[in-house]
Amino acid sequence: MQMVHTEMKSLIELQQLIQKKIDGYCRVNGDSALFEPINYLIQLPGKRMRPAICLMSANLFTNELESIVYPAFALEVFHNFTLMHDDIMDQSPLRRGMPTVHERWNTNTAILSGDAMMIQAYQLLIKTDQSHLSNLLPLFSKTALEVCLGQQMDMDFEKMPVVTAQEYIEMIRLKTSVLVACAMQMGGLLTGQEQSVQEQLYQIGLYLGLSFQLQDDYLDTFGTTEKVGKRIGNDILAHKKTYMMLRLHEAMAQPNPHAVHDLYNQDLSEDDLIRTVQSWYIEQGIDQEAKQLIQSYYDKAIQLFDEIQVPSERKNTLRELMHQLHHRES
Amino acid sequence: MQMVHTEMKSLIELQQLIQKKIDGYCRVNGDSALFEPINYLIQLPGKRMRPAICLMSANLFTNELESIVYPAFALEVFHNFTLMHDDIMDQSPLRRGMPTVHERWNTNTAILSGDAMMIQAYQLLIKTDQSHLSNLLPLFSKTALEVCLGQQMDMDFEKMPVVTAQEYIEMIRLKTSVLVACAMQMGGLLTGQEQSVQEQLYQIGLYLGLSFQLQDDYLDTFGTTEKVGKRIGNDILAHKKTYMMLRLHEAMAQPNPHAVHDLYNQDLSEDDLIRTVQSWYIEQGIDQEAKQLIQSYYDKAIQLFDEIQVPSERKNTLRELMHQLHHRES
Repeated sequence: MQMVHTEMKSLIELQQLIQKKIDGYCRVNGDSALFEPINYLIQLPGKRMRPAICLMSANLFTNELESIVYPAFALEVFHNFTLMHDDIMDQSPLRRGMPTVHERWNTNTAILSGDAMMIQAYQLLIKTDQSHLSNLLPLFSKTALEVCLGQQMDMDFEKMPVVTAQEYIEMIRLKTSVLVACAMQMGGLLTGQEQSVQEQLYQIGLYLGLSFQLQDDYLDTFGTTEKVGKRIGNDILAHKKTYMMLRLHEAMAQPNPHAVHDLYNQDLSEDDLIRTVQSWYIEQGIDQEAKQLIQSYYDKAIQLFDEIQVPSERKNTLRELMHQLHHRES
Repeated sequence: MQMVHTEMKSLIELQQLIQKKIDGYCRVNGDSALFEPINYLIQLPGKRMRPAICLMSANLFTNELESIVYPAFALEVFHNFTLMHDDIMDQSPLRRGMPTVHERWNTNTAILSGDAMMIQAYQLLIKTDQSHLSNLLPLFSKTALEVCLGQQMDMDFEKMPVVTAQEYIEMIRLKTSVLVACAMQMGGLLTGQEQSVQEQLYQIGLYLGLSFQLQDDYLDTFGTTEKVGKRIGNDILAHKKTYMMLRLHEAMAQPNPHAVHDLYNQDLSEDDLIRTVQSWYIEQGIDQEAKQLIQSYYDKAIQLFDEIQVPSERKNTLRELMHQLHHRES
């Protein structure tokens, strides 16, 4: 097993591996009314972060990834199922710059094709050595249910007058992070690592997911249109209860608990509203606070990652991905 | 193992067993926003036919049902998930005489709680001996996907100018029968019967499901309000493409292909429309044709059932249920 690191897969190689599975999956699906929207959504260009992370996690321990590609791909299909249904609930017109399924077809189609997609996620998940099933399925199902709980919390937030920053973190933990954590753990589970290592991998994914989502929110407000590829300030315009917005409400509650609401009740132009909130974030130090929080989750992920007992060169690809995600500008 | 038949469970005992699982499930769910609609729907009174059939199928071979109650209950949870989503798609205001989830709450809630329910079905399904998982999960997932395909066909029918009676049978096979078939097969699978017996059980369930759904349609037109508990003729009023309606279109196509459409274009009162279509069914012999078809599927189920190699007394409960379903008037 000399030169084992030459056998390690790069991110691009892994994405190619996943793309092959996507192509095969779409071919088998065919173009019936139930599957056409599924093929459409899954073929929109994406980073394939979840399956890539799962494969990289497995690649820490083995070069034999063939048996892990299907369950890894299940994570992508499940993720796309949640996108299809979330887009209905959020009435989003666009996904990855293209019309959402319920816009291009209709709501009923998006409901039913989403349902089919979730079942297909399970079908892909179980394409693995049967000795893993009794551990894999509870992990995946628990995670899937938590993702639903996260979406429920997110919808509840819209109706709640007060949401704390802590509640927001809990929401993104459920809605985004647990699936990344599950992806990491699956890499350990499917290569037969012991429970303590699996839990460590799960925690790394959890911190990575939290850091990733907070970074997403940060870029929506402080990114650049050229890099992010969409208008900056959408969350501000929607008065979305992000971590920064909730912290702003908290920070400005003294002396005037309605300061932020008052701003939104003024008849400002969109650009003025965005600029004002951005400047308040900076005045209150909330942009720095967000960056520190992102950094602290990232540091925790890296710290746990460093503790994993495999040769350092096996960690290169995953370390590189974590670094890329952390320093991305889009 | 003398007097083994005294250990067999009656339908009422099985329904009590299932009800206990429902109670426990709802208790664990609690009353959060995600789970309240789930508890509401699953607690509406129902026959619990699918888990009961699964348990009766298992009871053909064993008295030890405890390990089968969870996967059997998964069938009920899955069935209720399909009801929650189908009711959105069909815009149904009532389910079992009570407001549907999307009416009582809203569409988003019905989508998300339905999603959670499907995941929970998998969580219940895997509460069984892990040696069964690698056979159980593909069977269940394939069935679940077919149920989606059936719903897709049903929705497609609404937009199609011409649907054949044969296409209708294929639609109800997918939408209704495969889940009954799966329930029957699971009884064999979870008690370790060989593949040929499992396939036989599946076929029995398939014929039973077809017979059951056609009987449902028949009673909607030729039942009595007192027995059925709802207005007779709903399918006729909706010009629903049932087996009988499609056969009527076919039967009356000579000399006038538009005969039935012309009737619907007249300004008849609802009662007159129902009475006229009923009389046409009778004139064309389509009521008898439907009854014969129901009978022939039932006969096929019974014939295969008789061939199962277990002591006759072990079959009493399931035979009694089949008889009850076949001769029901509601």
